[in-house]
Formats: sequence, structure tokens, C-alpha cells
Amino acid sequence: MQKKKISITVIRRLPKYYRKLEDLERIKISRVSSQELSDLTGFTASQIRQDLNNFGGFGLQGYGYNVKELKSNLGEILGLNSVHNTCIVGAGNLGSAIANFKGFEDAGFKIVAILDSDKDIIGKKISGIKVESSDNMEKLIKDKDIEIAVLTVSKKNAQDVAEELEEAGIKSIWNLTTADLDVSENVIVEDVSLKDSLFTLSYFMREKHN
Amino acid sequence: MQKKKISITVIRRLPKYYRKLEDLERIKISRVSSQELSDLTGFTASQIRQDLNNFGGFGLQGYGYNVKELKSNLGEILGLNSVHNTCIVGAGNLGSAIANFKGFEDAGFKIVAILDSDKDIIGKKISGIKVESSDNMEKLIKDKDIEIAVLTVSKKNAQDVAEELEEAGIKSIWNLTTADLDVSENVIVEDVSLKDSLFTLSYFMREKHN
Repeated sequence: MQKKKISITVIRRLPKYYRKLEDLERIKISRVSSQELSDLTGFTASQIRQDLNNFGGFGLQGYGYNVKELKSNLGEILGLNSVHNTCIVGAGNLGSAIANFKGFEDAGFKIVAILDSDKDIIGKKISGIKVESSDNMEKLIKDKDIEIAVLTVSKKNAQDVAEELEEAGIKSIWNLTTADLDVSENVIVEDVSLKDSLFTLSYFMREKHN
Repeated sequence: MQKKKISITVIRRLPKYYRKLEDLERIKISRVSSQELSDLTGFTASQIRQDLNNFGGFGLQGYGYNVKELKSNLGEILGLNSVHNTCIVGAGNLGSAIANFKGFEDAGFKIVAILDSDKDIIGKKISGIKVESSDNMEKLIKDKDIEIAVLTVSKKNAQDVAEELEEAGIKSIWNLTTADLDVSENVIVEDVSLKDSLFTLSYFMREKHN
């Protein structure tokens, strides 16, 4: 497989291809054309061929793509065959929702710890995992070999907690707060940006109904 | 203000500008250059000028942008001055997290109802709002003039519930499930795609640490 710099917009389309291939595999479809993938994803067929070409292309003209093979290749590109130990920081409603979120395991994220600073929550169990005190963050991250933190604390605490996580040696933060985190380049931050998504919805409503 | 077709990638940058302008206004900064906006947002200064030009541009060379004015203009573009009555469908952890999510009011989304089909949850209060039975969906949407549904049901129920919502006259769905919804063009769907975001994080971890 070639290794070259791929644009972020291409990267962000890959998960959707992967999910659609999962669906196809589930219903025992073994072969798919770029046109069929287009119908499923909403991206154009030429866009899809171009995207997949970035990774050496896996299709054959007149045949299309082998579903199982393409899914396996995309899974490898997306790093889904590795397992990453993960902690959730912030055991409120959002943290609890994430702890129960089934998509985690599929993506290779294994929740091994849940942290909170609230004494009333520490010691309770969420999705079978006991909530531990944030004071033990560094020790937990080292002992349990945790690579990823899911950040679900309040906006006002987000930056401080992100810095603590970096000091504790975390490699990646999945940021579900509305704060823009300022951490060093050593830490990968993936923002979910619920608020930006809402603002975007608001834009489209105004566009459509005005 | 000009009205022309703006690309979705531009639209998706607008919320970040808006949030940064909110922050600047909060600390009483009245003027900002595209270079300063670049430092705050991570987009290039020329990108920013180009983006804002799409909307008639609001900057003056050598002066930059008036924070209050630009924020107000972007807020108008994003439709943030209108209030949309909103219901949450699915009162589990994720639905509860959303009901308590502060970003909602800022974006002009007013939660006026929470629906669930589970008898054990119906009648309970979440964030001060009583959970009602999904059986009353159509009546509630009409009586309370609800435009938007936040979908937080399970993946397997998502499509059915989306169809019910469309029949009940909903205009927009903020989709927090991992299902890709198939509804008519009359309904605006904004996907949050937690799973795609996780897959993307997985990609970057593989890229960086391999």
C-alpha cells in the first residue's frame, strides 16, 4: 500500500465507506460497484474511485470492488485491527452515554477506566466499570496502558483536564466538550463539536425555510 | 448580503468563527484581523478572508473586522436569532446528556418535549421536562409547534422513528444515532456521526504511532 499524504476531507469519507461495506457484508453482498457505493453514501462514483485510488485502489474495471477485501483494506487503513485502551474523563450523562455506546468496541477502543472528580460519583459503576477519582489519573493511565481519553467534562474545566491528561502521558483525546483544546502536537485531538453541528443545522434551516 | 450557493466546507467553518468571536466579545476585544482569527481557528488568514467574502465580506483592509458586527452578521447567516422548538426522541443517557447540554439555547434550539417508548421512563423528569410517550408524537409536534427532533434512539429503531417523525411533520432531524437515515428531501438531516469521528481518530493514531 502506498504511503502518501491524504487530505483530511478524503480521510473523513473513509469511515462512511467502511460502515456501508459492513452493512453489505452483513447481508451477504460480495461485490459492489462505485455507482452502487455512490447510491449508498451520497458521494459521486468518480469521487469514490478517486478516494480509493489514494490507497492504491482496490477495484477492477467492469467488476467493481470485492466487499470483504475492500472492507478489510479500509479497516487496516483506519487502524481498526488494533485495540486501544481508553478512559472516559467525566462521568456525567454524556460520559455514561459514551460508556454504553456500542460503536466503541467496533472501532477498537476498549474502555478500561472512567474518571470523575465528584465524590458522589466516584465508586459508582457505569456499564460495569467503577468510577475512579481523577486524582489517580496519572497512575491509572500508566498502569492500564491507556492511550486515549474521552473528554466529557464541562467546558470550563476542559482545558485544565486536557493539560493534566497530556502530563499523564495520554496520546489522544476524543473531545466531546465545546472547548477548543490547546495541547502540544504530541497529542492527537479529535473534536466532535456538537455545538458546531447544531449551528450548521441552524444554517440549513434558515436557508431552506426562509 | 449576497445570496449565492456556498460550499458545505465553508459553511462548516462558520460556527468556529462565530464561537471565537463570542470568546473575543466576552473579553471585550472589539477588533480582530484575519491573521488573529487564523491564530484562533487554525484556518489560514487567506482562507478566512475568502470565506467571509462569500457573505459580502465585513472587513476593512488595515483595520480588520469589527468583532461585534461580524459576530452579529455571522449569527444572522447561521440563523441564530430565530428560536426553534425542539424535541428529544429517546430519553436514555445520550438523550439526557443532550437535554442538559448548554449549547442548545445559544444555538436557538428550545427543548419543549422529550419522548420515549419505554414505560419505565415515561413520566420521569429530565432537566425539568417530563418524558412523554412516543405514541403522542404527532399531537405533540403539532400542538407545541416543534420543528426539530434530536434523534437519540438505538440504531436499529432509528430509521422507523425518523419515518414517524417525518409523517408527524418534523422539518429537521439532528441525528445522533449511527444510522444513515433515509427520509425525503423535505426533512433536513444533520448527522453527528460519533462512530465516524472515532474511526477518524483511529486513522490518525495509526498514522502517527506506526
